[in-house]
Amino acid sequence: MEPIVKSVLEHASVRNYDTSKKIPREQIETMINCARVSPTSMNGQTLTIINIQNPNIRKRISELAFNQQHIIDCSDFFVFVMDFNKSNIALKKHGKTMKIQESVESILVGSVDIGIALGTAIVVAESMGLGTVPIGAVRNAPTELAEVLELPQNTFPIVGLCIGYIKGDKNPVKPKIPLDGYMLYDKYDSVTIEKNIHKYDKIMEKYFANRTELVATEKKIGVGQ
Amino acid sequence: MEPIVKSVLEHASVRNYDTSKKIPREQIETMINCARVSPTSMNGQTLTIINIQNPNIRKRISELAFNQQHIIDCSDFFVFVMDFNKSNIALKKHGKTMKIQESVESILVGSVDIGIALGTAIVVAESMGLGTVPIGAVRNAPTELAEVLELPQNTFPIVGLCIGYIKGDKNPVKPKIPLDGYMLYDKYDSVTIEKNIHKYDKIMEKYFANRTELVATEKKIGVGQ
Repeated sequence: MEPIVKSVLEHASVRNYDTSKKIPREQIETMINCARVSPTSMNGQTLTIINIQNPNIRKRISELAFNQQHIIDCSDFFVFVMDFNKSNIALKKHGKTMKIQESVESILVGSVDIGIALGTAIVVAESMGLGTVPIGAVRNAPTELAEVLELPQNTFPIVGLCIGYIKGDKNPVKPKIPLDGYMLYDKYDSVTIEKNIHKYDKIMEKYFANRTELVATEKKIGVGQ
Repeated sequence: MEPIVKSVLEHASVRNYDTSKKIPREQIETMINCARVSPTSMNGQTLTIINIQNPNIRKRISELAFNQQHIIDCSDFFVFVMDFNKSNIALKKHGKTMKIQESVESILVGSVDIGIALGTAIVVAESMGLGTVPIGAVRNAPTELAEVLELPQNTFPIVGLCIGYIKGDKNPVKPKIPLDGYMLYDKYDSVTIEKNIHKYDKIMEKYFANRTELVATEKKIGVGQ
């Protein structure tokens, strides 16, 4: 198996970080450069990543996101911001008026492009032996977060990402809906999907029976990537 | 430089595919398994990937997406579907009622999770020497596409993906907004963003001056990932 496939297939979210170790700046820049060159819709690049290093800002963001401690503990915490301020500046420069923000299409474009960048950053970080966990809860209080990050008009914080050195053992891989219920051929097939959800329910019953502690943690913080 | 970093940094969209070569089914399953284990919000897994092999369906989707020929020519063409039908089946099974589809939060969750899976699939495919290009134009005629794919309620086609063997030379890497205008520290900084957009404009002027043919193609199909 190719090393990258092995690394991706071993993905598990990491919430326990070694607070004594910082990822070198150069390595972070390599990771974020990988995200930066990933494809964006019509090459729009309507996203900006904010790397939060200031401990007070970290603490405030953690409070706004259900007090998730790993936001404070990880080496680098990023907020991925949908950024149509960028395209607005570019369009104005060329005497044009931006219209995309008037439609839900902007949310789709912005979110998918951020997801692509986020997925790329996660794969690269994990291939380097680092732990990661995306933080959807940055959308819990977006107005407050926008104030903290001094976000201008036409921007929105979509998702966060913790990256850092793993403390202790990595979580085992969490089972997912089987491949047959994930990739279909030629058209949608509700019967196959339903069958695989039943199968997955049984798989997860067994999984959670062995991991009561994890269930409690996940219930507490309300996430389970 | 680690091989995966090198591969990611060489990303360029591929629209010229070798129509004589098919990717083995096992290799496709490995790639899609990598996407399948990538993180989803609260482990919701509200996405389904449809692999379109039927040539008539490919042709119809190409027509609906501005006649992009690479949708027909690539080895495997996927439609990434936001799938709250899955969560609805799961919730019903446990006597609960789904609410997320009432809010824009569903679009954010669905789009980001699809982006993560898409980014993961692209990185893995390119690491295997294959070419890829995401197809946002599957949203050009979503109602018609939903009919073609027999999509049920609570689903929506978000983005397509071509994967295949590259015909001829791969495009050179397209320059992006410099890192200083992509990753900021601690808070948003409009002055830095604006400065980097000006810088990028100059970089792209030079780039396009050398690639008039490419510009014509991109104008014709209306995309430029």
